[in-house]
Amino acid sequence: MKRSLNAICLPKGFKAQACGCGLKKNKRLDLALIFSEVPAVSCGMFTRNTFAAAPVIVSKGHLGTAQAQAIVANSGNANCYTGKQGLQVARKTARHCAKLLGIKDTLVLVASTGIIGRQVDFSKIQRALPLLSSSLQRKAGQKVSRAIMTTDTQPKEAAACFKVGKALVTIGAVAKGAGMIAPDMATMLCFITTDAAIQHAALKTALREAVENSFNLITVDGCMSTNDSVLILANGLAENKVITKQNKGYRHFKSALKKVCLALAKMIVEDAEGATKFITIVVSGAKHNAEAKKAALAIANSNLFKTAVYGGGTNWGRIIAAIGASGITVKSKVTLSCSSFKKRHVMVKVDLACGAGKAVVYTSDLTPEYVKINAEYN
Amino acid sequence: MKRSLNAICLPKGFKAQACGCGLKKNKRLDLALIFSEVPAVSCGMFTRNTFAAAPVIVSKGHLGTAQAQAIVANSGNANCYTGKQGLQVARKTARHCAKLLGIKDTLVLVASTGIIGRQVDFSKIQRALPLLSSSLQRKAGQKVSRAIMTTDTQPKEAAACFKVGKALVTIGAVAKGAGMIAPDMATMLCFITTDAAIQHAALKTALREAVENSFNLITVDGCMSTNDSVLILANGLAENKVITKQNKGYRHFKSALKKVCLALAKMIVEDAEGATKFITIVVSGAKHNAEAKKAALAIANSNLFKTAVYGGGTNWGRIIAAIGASGITVKSKVTLSCSSFKKRHVMVKVDLACGAGKAVVYTSDLTPEYVKINAEYN
Repeated sequence: MKRSLNAICLPKGFKAQACGCGLKKNKRLDLALIFSEVPAVSCGMFTRNTFAAAPVIVSKGHLGTAQAQAIVANSGNANCYTGKQGLQVARKTARHCAKLLGIKDTLVLVASTGIIGRQVDFSKIQRALPLLSSSLQRKAGQKVSRAIMTTDTQPKEAAACFKVGKALVTIGAVAKGAGMIAPDMATMLCFITTDAAIQHAALKTALREAVENSFNLITVDGCMSTNDSVLILANGLAENKVITKQNKGYRHFKSALKKVCLALAKMIVEDAEGATKFITIVVSGAKHNAEAKKAALAIANSNLFKTAVYGGGTNWGRIIAAIGASGITVKSKVTLSCSSFKKRHVMVKVDLACGAGKAVVYTSDLTPEYVKINAEYN
Repeated sequence: MKRSLNAICLPKGFKAQACGCGLKKNKRLDLALIFSEVPAVSCGMFTRNTFAAAPVIVSKGHLGTAQAQAIVANSGNANCYTGKQGLQVARKTARHCAKLLGIKDTLVLVASTGIIGRQVDFSKIQRALPLLSSSLQRKAGQKVSRAIMTTDTQPKEAAACFKVGKALVTIGAVAKGAGMIAPDMATMLCFITTDAAIQHAALKTALREAVENSFNLITVDGCMSTNDSVLILANGLAENKVITKQNKGYRHFKSALKKVCLALAKMIVEDAEGATKFITIVVSGAKHNAEAKKAALAIANSNLFKTAVYGGGTNWGRIIAAIGASGITVKSKVTLSCSSFKKRHVMVKVDLACGAGKAVVYTSDLTPEYVKINAEYN
């Protein structure tokens, strides 16, 4: 799959726009709007952090209707731990945007990313929304991918298409994320657009499975964010036979959605803060899949393993220590095979020989640059 | 409490010696022997890592007799994940040493620290033991503290004394540890000597409580080691009235032991790999103590919090994110007070206002130097 530009505008009926409203310094892009010409079947997945950000709370509420038509996202301020005032900003953002677009408030989803614990200056968003909503276009997909970046060094886009009968169905997506990345979920925003006609129940299950097999397999620093949101809008304009969990289109849809999400998840790891290496950890032979994932994440989140990979000396004892500390079922010996830690892509394979459980997890090395980036991010 | 030199030889009847046997490069001190003139009541606490090192397994076995008279410890090689051969080395070390000292094998405890997964060259230990055991002296306490160091930059010693009736009881201890530090336990070795006369059951409970309130309150990198061992020898030469859980001496003993352990635990955090700051995290108002500790450790182990402290910008949003990710009971607001992250000693106080649970945890900042040290340690 190639990194498709303008991804979220590839499905029929989607437009977008982005601008710099002043939440970030130096007029950098920080506000994005995604719009579907018609109301779309919609659902989302969100952080499990107790202190979920205001837009997470508002979007969850709006998704009660199972429909959405627009997403407004800002970077530069997380609008998290901002109390009632923060909730009001998130609600006002949705309301103001809905009015400008001539749709119901609940059809607008909101998302934020940035510093935690600071109030958002709503006037900046308010001032920018009219121009944003009146200049929506079919070619602003990449601009949106830039507007949601924080410490990301690269915009992240992916798309896939498949046929249901004679109808061509397209899925496009943008994501941001580089630090504060851990399952569940990675610290990130991901917005997915598709022109598929699909039942809400099928969309929900497909999204959950795709996230489970992509964003929930990556970790950068084991830190769970307060703002993680994956939102999907399916507007039906591909005019395919409506996808249900029972028909053939569902399998194609799930497969394409998973591919898009996995591609973005890997881009997040590739772009991990300060990282110099991409690490794949494959654990097999665990008692069951959950134990395999636990072991893989224990290795992936071990600072000592991650610094060893950065150093390039294949200090595999730290893999053993991490597995042993994870509390999973093991025998006295495990089979371990690692590529050289000197490579750009490091592969670690662990066979626990206890059962049929398997898992793959993706992570990055821990570098002095990661420390510097996060020491200076204020 | 001041950092007492020669601490482990301060209690009556203890001698020690250390040398460089060649496990470390450049003839640096790497082998230590601690000896009590008479058999001592003894117990220990060990890592919970599934891949516990060979000396951990052997010492646990020997402590089945509730007695010990000597400790042999090497640095430079962890003798962990070394299979049967590693176990044999640990057993041979104890046996050889016992023979030279003219005592039973089971009275010798063993401990190791260093790289995981490499076989120990026993011949080096074998060659060094005769001179070591024949040159035991009352003034080698500090030498022992140096011989067990790995990435430590400072030797760590502490001592305390108190009276039981007219008898003066002394406790002395050495510890090593700087990285791979997490509860349970911190990655470390700690050897404690005392001339107290004390029942085994009382010693065991006092040690467990002291470790719980010292080494289990510190974290450097959240990585659990394979070699953690805390060993205590109580030889009774103070000739105090035997301490039991019921008499007054017990309270004094527990208090002194806890002081010694906490002093060493704090020295470990002070000496944490690459650290520039000492952080105290106090959580109160949790549902119960266990939740308070969980929250405190979640903050202490957050790479994002630790890099923020390194950076000096008081990015307290990361404290909120860490608490929220920990899964403990919270309300929508917590009371947070932090000293400036620019200070050498950073204090974070969190009041959850949910109950009476309290905990204090000590940790360090995450720095580029930590990454470098662990990237280069091979």
